[in-house]
Amino acid sequence: MEEKLAELKARLAEIYDLRAASAVLSWDQQTYMPPGGAGARAEILATLSRLAHEKFTSTETGRLLDELKTTLDSADPDGDDVRLIQAAARDYEREHKLPAELVAEFARAAALAHEAWVKARSEKNFQAFLPALEKIFTLSRRAADYYGFADSPYDALLDGYEPGAKTADVRRIFAELRDGLVPLVKAIAARPETDDSVLRQRYAEQKQWQFAEEVIKKLGYDFDRGRQDKAPHPFCATFGLGDVRLTARVDENFLPTHLMSAIHEAGHGMYEQGLTPSLARSPLFDAPSLGLHESQSRLWENLVGRSRGFWKYYYPRLQSVFPENLDGVDFGVFYQAINKVKPSLIRVEADEVTYSLHIMIRFEIEVDVLEGRLAVQDIPGAWNAKYKDYLGLDVPDDSLGCLQDVHWSMGYVGYFSTYTLGNLASVQIFEKAMADEPAIPADIERGEFASLLGWLRMNIHQHGRKYQPGELLQRVTGRPLDSAPYLAYLQRKYSEIYGL
Amino acid sequence: MEEKLAELKARLAEIYDLRAASAVLSWDQQTYMPPGGAGARAEILATLSRLAHEKFTSTETGRLLDELKTTLDSADPDGDDVRLIQAAARDYEREHKLPAELVAEFARAAALAHEAWVKARSEKNFQAFLPALEKIFTLSRRAADYYGFADSPYDALLDGYEPGAKTADVRRIFAELRDGLVPLVKAIAARPETDDSVLRQRYAEQKQWQFAEEVIKKLGYDFDRGRQDKAPHPFCATFGLGDVRLTARVDENFLPTHLMSAIHEAGHGMYEQGLTPSLARSPLFDAPSLGLHESQSRLWENLVGRSRGFWKYYYPRLQSVFPENLDGVDFGVFYQAINKVKPSLIRVEADEVTYSLHIMIRFEIEVDVLEGRLAVQDIPGAWNAKYKDYLGLDVPDDSLGCLQDVHWSMGYVGYFSTYTLGNLASVQIFEKAMADEPAIPADIERGEFASLLGWLRMNIHQHGRKYQPGELLQRVTGRPLDSAPYLAYLQRKYSEIYGL
Repeated sequence: MEEKLAELKARLAEIYDLRAASAVLSWDQQTYMPPGGAGARAEILATLSRLAHEKFTSTETGRLLDELKTTLDSADPDGDDVRLIQAAARDYEREHKLPAELVAEFARAAALAHEAWVKARSEKNFQAFLPALEKIFTLSRRAADYYGFADSPYDALLDGYEPGAKTADVRRIFAELRDGLVPLVKAIAARPETDDSVLRQRYAEQKQWQFAEEVIKKLGYDFDRGRQDKAPHPFCATFGLGDVRLTARVDENFLPTHLMSAIHEAGHGMYEQGLTPSLARSPLFDAPSLGLHESQSRLWENLVGRSRGFWKYYYPRLQSVFPENLDGVDFGVFYQAINKVKPSLIRVEADEVTYSLHIMIRFEIEVDVLEGRLAVQDIPGAWNAKYKDYLGLDVPDDSLGCLQDVHWSMGYVGYFSTYTLGNLASVQIFEKAMADEPAIPADIERGEFASLLGWLRMNIHQHGRKYQPGELLQRVTGRPLDSAPYLAYLQRKYSEIYGL
Repeated sequence: MEEKLAELKARLAEIYDLRAASAVLSWDQQTYMPPGGAGARAEILATLSRLAHEKFTSTETGRLLDELKTTLDSADPDGDDVRLIQAAARDYEREHKLPAELVAEFARAAALAHEAWVKARSEKNFQAFLPALEKIFTLSRRAADYYGFADSPYDALLDGYEPGAKTADVRRIFAELRDGLVPLVKAIAARPETDDSVLRQRYAEQKQWQFAEEVIKKLGYDFDRGRQDKAPHPFCATFGLGDVRLTARVDENFLPTHLMSAIHEAGHGMYEQGLTPSLARSPLFDAPSLGLHESQSRLWENLVGRSRGFWKYYYPRLQSVFPENLDGVDFGVFYQAINKVKPSLIRVEADEVTYSLHIMIRFEIEVDVLEGRLAVQDIPGAWNAKYKDYLGLDVPDDSLGCLQDVHWSMGYVGYFSTYTLGNLASVQIFEKAMADEPAIPADIERGEFASLLGWLRMNIHQHGRKYQPGELLQRVTGRPLDSAPYLAYLQRKYSEIYGL
């Protein structure tokens, strides 16, 4: 069996390499690729995806997995090899349902859609994106049919990002959030509006870039094993052990855009940089789910990066970098501004309280399209109506509306709801970390993040994909995913800020 | 047979995609990859190389080629499909001799060697590169044994870069060059040394970068289908139709380093950008050989970029960009400086007259190592002795000696001599272009390069790899490769400059 296991691992390593190559090519497409390269790039990505899929879903892989599964009963259930075989078997179960041609077509369509999206967004022209977006939704629906589902095609897609999660869970959580958040939003709206003009001055790009790099380096993101480049949409991408990259974009007229998203992406990056090296080139060299991945990015972005303690340390440093903007600006004014709650148009810039509403809108639209109640061409109308309904806002153009996010252009349908799951998990995990390591808050106030990162590494990062998402959360926090801690956290924090 | 041909093309397209992916990953390794990524990158490149090799040398490819070859007699011998089948069959014949594991090991070793080389060069420490370099030469020699050869293992490797060329041809050409160049070098050395201090001032990096981009854009390099990034060594890489990139490095204290190498790489880039689009994703979407590729880069770098006519147009422009360096500097002084002949240590900065000596040294060392007369650890000693012997120079450290070139670190052994073949071809081709289009020299003086580029596109670039190198040169110039035009050109140009 040792030999079979080695054979499986060699095969999985090869598949990992093909996917890592795709990740590099996709990163390059979003950072440096000249416009003329889009067509060729789509073909290369289609080929790499098809080959990885064919290799992974081949009868040889299936045979190896079947043989190795018979050995599991007698082995340590938490051993790396056991978990590897189980994870690969689940992936195989899911992926072998898709025909290779669909996988290739999806990769090709996504590469082309990304180029169409970049152009359409900059031109504020949804029609220019429509054909590509229709293709993405058509292929997503076809994939859902191949995967199979009981209730909603959304289930089939969500399972690829958040194994085990159901559309019904997401609906229940959104209902709980709505019940908790609507009164909070109303109470805040009744208070005087926070003046955040201090953030809306000109902050020079180069200095923003340097400051954010300084911050994320100190948090623990390792630039010897990563880098940060500009892209139309911030993301984190891993190309294997020792190469975990971030992208970012800078708004010279709104300080939080770059800084907070750099911290967010660094949260993802530190997760990937903390994976156990011996898991490299295997399906376990990853997070268990997007929700858990997002728990780390949101933890660093919000629970650390928007906390009073963090800014006690960093505000004087920020003042020294931007004296022209911040000299004489009181700490309290800055802290309130960085935590201002106000319905807004752009998800990635939304405050913590209204953020979930942005996700809810995307979730509802995706479900409606997948279930056939909404045509892709009618997305802008539905989007704008929901922003009016849920957030009270008029969307002036689609670049500030349904063209704002990169996800659909990358073929990611069914992905957004994991952001909400991640928000919930972030609070559960952070509270457990502080219970285990009571020094964490004081450390943060001193600009020391090793106690927090060390706890996260030990309890979450190192395990990679060894455990299923629900299982890992239960192991770490002793409880399943729950919206109560998240709601309580928001209530507590914003009652204090807004004097409710 | 239509169906078989389509099957072959689909297979070759997939292989092209895998190699293009490798090219992107290799470009990324040399431009942006963080140091921590080297190990993972080596594995990915090994996997991609092995898969491409396995797909290409599979029995299915062999069977398709055998079947399709039987159809060739009745077809147009210059048709794209006929030429495609012939080229693929020749490649198959060569590549199927190598075991897949050797191909993968070579790709892995080269990726690691590149990292070792970058570090060793910056530390001027040959010992730090030695183990990786020994591996490269050992694997190169093993590959030569698999390919097979009659006279020298160098033949087997050279054939991969310059199909049809023999070590004996290279030796003969070097002998002819020596006979022609030694008296010329001596005659120049007897003249007063050119003062090139005007080039050895501080030229700000950013302005150098912009000026070079302006120049190569005007030559005809298309930035919508390419870009230029910094790397330790300048090169040109193609990732498919519409994505042909250049790299460059800037020396703030010597103007020609960046400018002339940008023109050189743009020469390669314009070749690749001129390939017929319908050849994309096939083995014909490339140049017939490195020598012909180099004929284009050297043509633009030297026959255009160091010509009196070119500088008549560009010198005033250069003066306006760098008034602090060039105000009041006479055109003649600048033109002489940019064409100064003097033995020097660095190949890529060598003048046209002594350039071939640099190649000769590398060629002799490679042959000696491959034939077992020189140990890899003794390369620095041999290198330094030859620089003393041929160029009269002492090599102060290995970064200015045997660590200066990227090639060995990429696994390219047997490559350097194609540079000399390219130099010869560049003059033959340029003279034919001017014979066909007598307006070219006057156009260059007016900063118009379309007549030259158009001729090159029509006669050389568009054909890609349809013709064998010798065949293409014969078709274009009506003659085989010949050192006489090259020697006559050097004699003519430098007699005038040095008043011989």
